[in-house]
Amino acid sequence: MDLIEIGKKAKAAAAYLGRLGPADKNRGLRASAQALLDGEAEILCANQEDVIRAMAAGMSRALIDRLELTPARVQAMADGLLQVAMLEDPTGEVLSMKERPNGLVIGRKRVPLGVIGVIYEARPNVTADAFGLCFKAGNAVILKGGSDALESNKAIVCWLKKGLADAGISEDAVCLISDTDRETARKLMRLNQYVDVLIPRGGAGLIRTVVENSTVPVIETGTGNCHIYVDEGADLEMALNIIDNAKTQRIGVCNACESLVVHRAEAQRFLPLLRKRMEEKQVEVRADAEACALVPWFVPATEEDWGSEYLDYILSLKLVGSLEEAIAHINSYNTGHSESIVTRDYEHAQRFLNEIDAAAVYVNASTRFTDGNEFGFGAEIGISTQKLHARGPMGLEALTTTKYIIYGNGQIRE
Amino acid sequence: MDLIEIGKKAKAAAAYLGRLGPADKNRGLRASAQALLDGEAEILCANQEDVIRAMAAGMSRALIDRLELTPARVQAMADGLLQVAMLEDPTGEVLSMKERPNGLVIGRKRVPLGVIGVIYEARPNVTADAFGLCFKAGNAVILKGGSDALESNKAIVCWLKKGLADAGISEDAVCLISDTDRETARKLMRLNQYVDVLIPRGGAGLIRTVVENSTVPVIETGTGNCHIYVDEGADLEMALNIIDNAKTQRIGVCNACESLVVHRAEAQRFLPLLRKRMEEKQVEVRADAEACALVPWFVPATEEDWGSEYLDYILSLKLVGSLEEAIAHINSYNTGHSESIVTRDYEHAQRFLNEIDAAAVYVNASTRFTDGNEFGFGAEIGISTQKLHARGPMGLEALTTTKYIIYGNGQIRE
Repeated sequence: MDLIEIGKKAKAAAAYLGRLGPADKNRGLRASAQALLDGEAEILCANQEDVIRAMAAGMSRALIDRLELTPARVQAMADGLLQVAMLEDPTGEVLSMKERPNGLVIGRKRVPLGVIGVIYEARPNVTADAFGLCFKAGNAVILKGGSDALESNKAIVCWLKKGLADAGISEDAVCLISDTDRETARKLMRLNQYVDVLIPRGGAGLIRTVVENSTVPVIETGTGNCHIYVDEGADLEMALNIIDNAKTQRIGVCNACESLVVHRAEAQRFLPLLRKRMEEKQVEVRADAEACALVPWFVPATEEDWGSEYLDYILSLKLVGSLEEAIAHINSYNTGHSESIVTRDYEHAQRFLNEIDAAAVYVNASTRFTDGNEFGFGAEIGISTQKLHARGPMGLEALTTTKYIIYGNGQIRE
Repeated sequence: MDLIEIGKKAKAAAAYLGRLGPADKNRGLRASAQALLDGEAEILCANQEDVIRAMAAGMSRALIDRLELTPARVQAMADGLLQVAMLEDPTGEVLSMKERPNGLVIGRKRVPLGVIGVIYEARPNVTADAFGLCFKAGNAVILKGGSDALESNKAIVCWLKKGLADAGISEDAVCLISDTDRETARKLMRLNQYVDVLIPRGGAGLIRTVVENSTVPVIETGTGNCHIYVDEGADLEMALNIIDNAKTQRIGVCNACESLVVHRAEAQRFLPLLRKRMEEKQVEVRADAEACALVPWFVPATEEDWGSEYLDYILSLKLVGSLEEAIAHINSYNTGHSESIVTRDYEHAQRFLNEIDAAAVYVNASTRFTDGNEFGFGAEIGISTQKLHARGPMGLEALTTTKYIIYGNGQIRE
């Protein structure tokens, strides 16, 4: 289908969805979840086509693992939709309402964004997840998944639409773009007339492409060069456990720790302990010259290391002489995601929280908690690393906007 | 000065401003206001250079009026800064804080955006206004004004910096880009490393250029094709007064009415009254065939008229057969700014408020009220017509973001 045609259908569906109440939307979500289960055999079969094609094309084992669906994963998609059905509807609330001196009553109401475009890679579960969250917040969604998952996505969207139809709800609430060429993606990024927001989900390359080419407003998600700073006088055992967790509990995620900053006063005691733990966990530590002199096992770091999001068993390490230096270093190289201080000092904790410029700033905890579920949002559409609109984990509220509603009785401006 | 250099200075200033309390910021605003008055002669002299150059270049009378400063206008700029000093500081508030089951305490705090870029045309008063609002919200501002106002802007910024220095505050809180070529503007639009947000202020052409070329997140402001819908059974006298006010009280503004939609059932009675009033006010009415048949004085409209923001003594007029048709027409052609219904019908009022997709939706009032002062915000940096981050008049709060602050005691993720 032509992109303009998809845009028109989605815009009409958005107007329709904006009028649906929570009971209708939840019915739609439950019916879609059931449809995914009903369509399991067909979805798995389509997915096998994608997997066979990907294998033939030499896709890496890790990427094929993300692409491949199983009965358990189809069940997880369905469960995800049911879980979203249980979350509170974020729309309709009037956040404030006040009478002005001229008698106008001005209120601010939470409403859906309208049409949301989601551009993502070859992870077919995103298809159902993104639909569920956008739909619950009253938005129509236009999905543009990676070409490697096209058959899977077509099958999933086909069954989601069937579920909506079963519930008597417009199928245009979810639209899949089945042209997977770059030109179509670029057109979508400039479809301002029909698309209110674009959310890219995937690696740094995808996100950069969307930010650079889009005229539709974008919510930037993802890249995380997360730091942990071990302060002078910190509980070193706590620091080791937090670093270990933030680095190794899951490697390929944006809230994993990539960079370590250690106060010089703790170097002699702490670096040998760090070396031992990282060696056990097979993590390579790329350190500055001073740290390398203390622990020759460390690998010398280059300037590039300070800004790297490795997503791998690698950690950079820099020694500093003060809290100020630590904050300045982190604010220079971080990506606005998550940063943590390990400290016993009250004043240092407060200054770190105040002065670090990032979506989530921690004291004495692992950066791995930056996540919609861990924050209690129930689900998330991504983690915003920009400052406009939404910052940090984005739940349903990030998929809404507000409008002013004004009650008058003939007021004109003097 | 080189753009990268300006970016670095502004980013450093933003970190510094983020640590200033409201008392320091207000002292800076008062000192800057005083400095503008101290520098009046120099500012007016620089402005005369701009005005003479503009006249020689054949600039229109209307634009020269926007460019020219007078003692009263310098006073107004200074008063504006004093007014901003009296507004509440929007930053520092912790909007929510809650303990999670694992003991992490997660709070959401309102903080400055960081570095704000403002791109505008030849209105030197924007220089002081934009600085005042950005500064009060704790942001550094990079200003890129129109080349026609360059000497004026240089003088104003020089005196603002002097005021800040007098107050012991970093002068880098306000930076002016004095290269006025397009290439520099384009570089600013891609200065993601240093600039957090861009706000274009000016005509539709400027805004389109910024939206199309910027990789820095943009808050789109401005264009308003505002509609008034006269419902079946409306108070026609009220309708006339609202239309008259919204169209003619001030012509060149984004919240002026450009398009009229009238229920067919009122056409016979209402159109002759409308003709009389519009003829008196010298407003040309461009109407559909049916309305022209009733009132041959109307000029036939073309398809292009439905989407036009005239900013002139022109009004388009379309007849419709129902509320649904009116809503569909408005949602097709509006620019997401301000729309109003004149009605006596409770159900119609509620449906219009719910179903119209715009920043401000009115019942029985003029669209001219969409304005930061009229909404009680004290001041505004512009009116957002996009849905991300801020929608409608933007006061100080729109110049802030939030960050999550998380207090732990050694938590790691399982």
